[in-house]
Amino acid sequence: MPLNESEYLFSIRLRDTDAAGVLYFSRLLDHAHDAYEALMDDIGQPLQAMLDGAVVHLPLVHAEADYLAPLRLGDRIRVRVRLDKLGRSSFTLAYAFIADSGLEAARAATVHVAIRPDTGEPMALPSDLAQALGNLVRTATGGGDGTLSP
Amino acid sequence: MPLNESEYLFSIRLRDTDAAGVLYFSRLLDHAHDAYEALMDDIGQPLQAMLDGAVVHLPLVHAEADYLAPLRLGDRIRVRVRLDKLGRSSFTLAYAFIADSGLEAARAATVHVAIRPDTGEPMALPSDLAQALGNLVRTATGGGDGTLSP
Amino acid sequence: MPLNESEYLFSIRLRDTDAAGVLYFSRLLDHAHDAYEALMDDIGQPLQAMLDGAVVHLPLVHAEADYLAPLRLGDRIRVRVRLDKLGRSSFTLAYAFIADSGLEAARAATVHVAIRPDTGEPMALPSDLAQALGNLVRTATGGGDGTLSP
Amino acid sequence: MPLNESEYLFSIRLRDTDAAGVLYFSRLLDHAHDAYEALMDDIGQPLQAMLDGAVVHLPLVHAEADYLAPLRLGDRIRVRVRLDKLGRSSFTLAYAFIADSGLEAARAATVHVAIRPDTGEPMALPSDLAQALGNLVRTATGGGDGTLSP
Repeated sequence: MPLNESEYLFSIRLRDTDAAGVLYFSRLLDHAHDAYEALMDDIGQPLQAMLDGAVVHLPLVHAEADYLAPLRLGDRIRVRVRLDKLGRSSFTLAYAFIADSGLEAARAATVHVAIRPDTGEPMALPSDLAQALGNLVRTATGGGDGTLSP
Repeated sequence: MPLNESEYLFSIRLRDTDAAGVLYFSRLLDHAHDAYEALMDDIGQPLQAMLDGAVVHLPLVHAEADYLAPLRLGDRIRVRVRLDKLGRSSFTLAYAFIADSGLEAARAATVHVAIRPDTGEPMALPSDLAQALGNLVRTATGGGDGTLSP
Repeated sequence: MPLNESEYLFSIRLRDTDAAGVLYFSRLLDHAHDAYEALMDDIGQPLQAMLDGAVVHLPLVHAEADYLAPLRLGDRIRVRVRLDKLGRSSFTLAYAFIADSGLEAARAATVHVAIRPDTGEPMALPSDLAQALGNLVRTATGGGDGTLSP
Repeated sequence: MPLNESEYLFSIRLRDTDAAGVLYFSRLLDHAHDAYEALMDDIGQPLQAMLDGAVVHLPLVHAEADYLAPLRLGDRIRVRVRLDKLGRSSFTLAYAFIADSGLEAARAATVHVAIRPDTGEPMALPSDLAQALGNLVRTATGGGDGTLSP
């Protein structure tokens, strides 16, 4: 795994499925967000600390998903998370959902903006967060293959 | 409907179901809590005001459910909510899930305790909340038939 | 409400919210799908019949959402659902989430394709479904204002 | 960990929490069921095979949970699953949710009955399933301490 990516594993559980026998569509985005939270833990920016410290909130302003192949109960999925864009006050993450067969079964993206917890106004990303995300970008310049971007 | 009960309507949607083709079990408790929130709205004790005011929180300390008949996508359900017990610092609600056929398809119960938001210590139910719940009890003394208790 | 739209009402419940105090993002798409199911019920194409009959399945191949304003516990939302595109074997629905203030708080879109339940191969939309959706389109030609498209 | 138990790990994610800042109650039961599915995988009885084979379904007829301490975003939880009862056509699982501190933060139990997929009638547990569960019981006779039963 290149350093510019974080990998997150999960299995499709019964609560992810619906009466059509496959993954209910928005559960994919739940798992994408779980992978985002694990990434933030990994880079020393856990969401809980952010909510407690009340320096910045990072609400989503956009989310999207493409479903390429049906996912079923018991399927084991690797989520590859990649930083797609880094702006002054926002960033975009891209997610690839890889089945055991190696097939990319789904893709997703989430756009997060930094806001002041007290006023809800946009603000610049805190320097430590921007740096942690920027490290991912610099690493990716040398080693990323870009094949996972949605 | 006797005055001691609140009635809440919902339909089983795709996200409530699982790959076995029926309601995923804990979604029933989600709907029970939705019905509890609607009841609290009706008696002038909306949860949002409680969270904003920070005078009392009412976390659940116990929940249970009995599944009597399978529920399927599209089924229309009436939830009858009844106050089962009212203590100094806690109360118990009982829920009956009635299908279109009139059949009771499921039952649930939730136990709520009053705690101080700052310390998490138990406290007496605020007087206005106790009175609003007590009105339900007094009404029930005259008219409740008790057949919905789990 | 013009005839080319369907309207669906819901309240933000505790289970829709998260520890940041606002709507958890993918719950919006859950409610969008609930609104889609209610629309299908209204036009005589309930999902349950589709799953039982096994003539066609309509999985989502794409979903997206834009979050314009925070939604909080207790907020009452009107969802306006509009047919955005009708193809030979797919259709796109657009959703506008309108708060009590009249503010459009969020938008979403879902793309559905018709597949054979036995093989998973794409197929033309069944004629009765295409006609029911087409009626919406024809009505919209005369009366739609298009302001709700994402 | 004694052989009569299965252990399942998870972290409290944002989607598990609510606007009160703690775990939304029924998400605990979702994680209990995830742990049950992992146990069934471990003993060679995956739910997917059961749904595909259509020899037996194991719907829940009862579920309950006790909440002993608040769980918050980022908390890491070990779930200890124990077979509590094994009948001819049903079984009961007990779950203990252990926080990083070693504190038991919650308990849950689920009761499952074997039914024929075609008719929904109760049936004896299939012999291979009963044996796999019975092995757990026999192991427990020698080594279980019983302290986790709800």
